[in-house]
Amino acid sequence: MNILIVYAHPEPQSMNGAMYQTAIAHLEAAGHHVKTSDLYSMQFDPVSSRNNFSTVYDPAFFKPQLEEMHATEVGGFADKINMEQEKVEWCDLMIWQFPLWWFSIPAILKGWVDRVFAMGRFYKNGHLYETGLFGSKKALLSLTTGGPPENYLRDGLNGDLEGILRPVHRGIFEFTGFSVLQPHVIYGPARQSPQELSAVLKNWEHRLEHIFEEQPITIGAY
Amino acid sequence: MNILIVYAHPEPQSMNGAMYQTAIAHLEAAGHHVKTSDLYSMQFDPVSSRNNFSTVYDPAFFKPQLEEMHATEVGGFADKINMEQEKVEWCDLMIWQFPLWWFSIPAILKGWVDRVFAMGRFYKNGHLYETGLFGSKKALLSLTTGGPPENYLRDGLNGDLEGILRPVHRGIFEFTGFSVLQPHVIYGPARQSPQELSAVLKNWEHRLEHIFEEQPITIGAY
Repeated sequence: MNILIVYAHPEPQSMNGAMYQTAIAHLEAAGHHVKTSDLYSMQFDPVSSRNNFSTVYDPAFFKPQLEEMHATEVGGFADKINMEQEKVEWCDLMIWQFPLWWFSIPAILKGWVDRVFAMGRFYKNGHLYETGLFGSKKALLSLTTGGPPENYLRDGLNGDLEGILRPVHRGIFEFTGFSVLQPHVIYGPARQSPQELSAVLKNWEHRLEHIFEEQPITIGAY
Repeated sequence: MNILIVYAHPEPQSMNGAMYQTAIAHLEAAGHHVKTSDLYSMQFDPVSSRNNFSTVYDPAFFKPQLEEMHATEVGGFADKINMEQEKVEWCDLMIWQFPLWWFSIPAILKGWVDRVFAMGRFYKNGHLYETGLFGSKKALLSLTTGGPPENYLRDGLNGDLEGILRPVHRGIFEFTGFSVLQPHVIYGPARQSPQELSAVLKNWEHRLEHIFEEQPITIGAY
């Protein structure tokens, strides 16, 4: 199968870096085709602007969605954006590997979505949610947290993780038609021993072995 | 009172731009002190990295929170980050003016948080939520949406807006101690007439007139 891994962490030696490298090695060894977007290494610029486009629809007033629809019609996305769009269009499964920062994805990953997930090309009226353009694709969040698991339960310090991830699961993945796989969460890797971290990577490998047999979870409306 | 307005939209002529300018003019005319962070005009770089710091705690392994705690102790934040931190520390009320993109804030604003809201300086163990360092401050989201109000209700197309804004309200504002004021939402300004948009700005002025009399809303745990 075709798998895109989008990775957003500034430190290659981090747990996120290890999870990323493990996924590439294991999925390729299993015969899958893997493409990557290592956003920090690419020095991906996350600021959505006219730089998303090689074309201009309205030079007097920048309305991102109108420019996106125009660029979809005329092939007017900037090369760097088009390359990312093609990776998403190509994949059967998209994995995001990132640390949870401020109850959300790091800005470099948010901006990858802001710029790459363009109206017209990735979604449009009549093609949202159940009728989304990416209805044949799956998506999986693989993330680390700062705190231990009990901090991410209902009535725990931060509240339940499901609610924290919901804007991404529902508002990005299901919005564009992706089926959502159970998120893969490593809690507080900074506090774990090398032995524990090694077991974490083994668990990730085991999960990836059967990833295409998994049933999606349903996020649904709020 | 001291008010910080953080503004994130690439088009000055946009509804967001008009809301931003209206807030500055009206709050200053009312005798308040206003500081601003116009992130697009500042060309604010939202990518959190070693560029956040003028100091290095561990050159061999970049752990953002350890670097943040060190920088807090020794005054080691990069000038551009320190300036933003001082604005937040200075204000009684912080207003964010932005378009809702992908059920969240634009990347340029997310990265402003990723970089500026540093451990040690803005939060630390024992100073979270009810005991947060910013317990005397208030925060308000002022945003525009793409769709009409009925899309942002429970069981509406996108589900209720409260859940969509929750990671910001709870995970950023309440996490650091801010009291949260009711968000100010302009639904689908692209579809409104000039007369309607003029009324929108008037409503915003009226609300700002009494903003320091408002009672905060409680977000609370998930």
